[in-house]
Amino acid sequence: MARTRLTPEREGELYAAVLDLLGEVGYEALTMDAVAARTRSSKATLYRQWGSKAELVVRALRNNKPVHLAEIDTGSLRGDIQAVLLRTDDCQMEKNSALMRGLTHAVHDNPDLFQALRELLVEPEMNGLQALLQRAVDRGEVRPDNPALAYVPHMMIGALAARELVEQRPVDQAFLVDYVEAVVFPALGV
Amino acid sequence: MARTRLTPEREGELYAAVLDLLGEVGYEALTMDAVAARTRSSKATLYRQWGSKAELVVRALRNNKPVHLAEIDTGSLRGDIQAVLLRTDDCQMEKNSALMRGLTHAVHDNPDLFQALRELLVEPEMNGLQALLQRAVDRGEVRPDNPALAYVPHMMIGALAARELVEQRPVDQAFLVDYVEAVVFPALGV
Repeated sequence: MARTRLTPEREGELYAAVLDLLGEVGYEALTMDAVAARTRSSKATLYRQWGSKAELVVRALRNNKPVHLAEIDTGSLRGDIQAVLLRTDDCQMEKNSALMRGLTHAVHDNPDLFQALRELLVEPEMNGLQALLQRAVDRGEVRPDNPALAYVPHMMIGALAARELVEQRPVDQAFLVDYVEAVVFPALGV
Repeated sequence: MARTRLTPEREGELYAAVLDLLGEVGYEALTMDAVAARTRSSKATLYRQWGSKAELVVRALRNNKPVHLAEIDTGSLRGDIQAVLLRTDDCQMEKNSALMRGLTHAVHDNPDLFQALRELLVEPEMNGLQALLQRAVDRGEVRPDNPALAYVPHMMIGALAARELVEQRPVDQAFLVDYVEAVVFPALGV
């Protein structure tokens, strides 16, 4: 695997530089040349390692994520969800929202970016969420036929999208904790 | 008022032409010249009547909306919400989603469009929703201190946004009816 040639430290440095550039210039204006210059690496290395700008950007986002749902298992649904929310601090959340806002914009014109986001970010997190909810069902916390089980992603995406649209304020921990207590747990019957 | 000079029929024709153009070319490429040509009116008339492209587009969207929340009052919360969902057919919903998708994109680069959308579409509908929920509280259907009351817009925006993002399918009536039964009513304790 070509990917094993970089040390994890070097890979982390590269990803950090990509996210910095992304925040500075946006997806459209971000070039492999600029990444190569910023990170003192060759474009050939970047392409060998990541194949495309879309994949490099999405892997950088994935690396930046402090929480991977699959790693969380506290023994209760409330504990799991709170662990998810509390592991990302407000500053990181605001940075992430700004990055995702920019990418949502870029996705319209870049189907390969959409595809990479789905495969590398959305689907793994959906699977992690699915497993987390299944454990709650297995423990008897949520009834297996509760129709809200299928809509947890929708509820959470609503919290993220509407906060800015309706309240014109960035998402923060306090808001998300309040939202899951007011909406997600009651809908799940917890 | 300059606005009264057009008959409602003529105004409706103009709005329909604006939405057709918007669907064909998008917000950025839509010009007052193109609207004037398509509707056989003068640019001066358009500007006198609407002031700006952003206002013309948002008023056209508003005119196109078959449901204004403020007009609905069936006597129960479930009846009100179902009336909202059932008055927009699937074909219209898909057309609306496509238009809103395009506009969400354009909003990034056009603060005046964002402002017009907020003032002419989002805020009136939020006020209508607020009144609808307040009636449910007054009738004793929802407890006045239910914390989900503040989050109904978030839940609904989540349904609209996540359907395409997670399921990659357009929103339709059956989905929305199922979603409000699974999520919104349980969260409100109805």
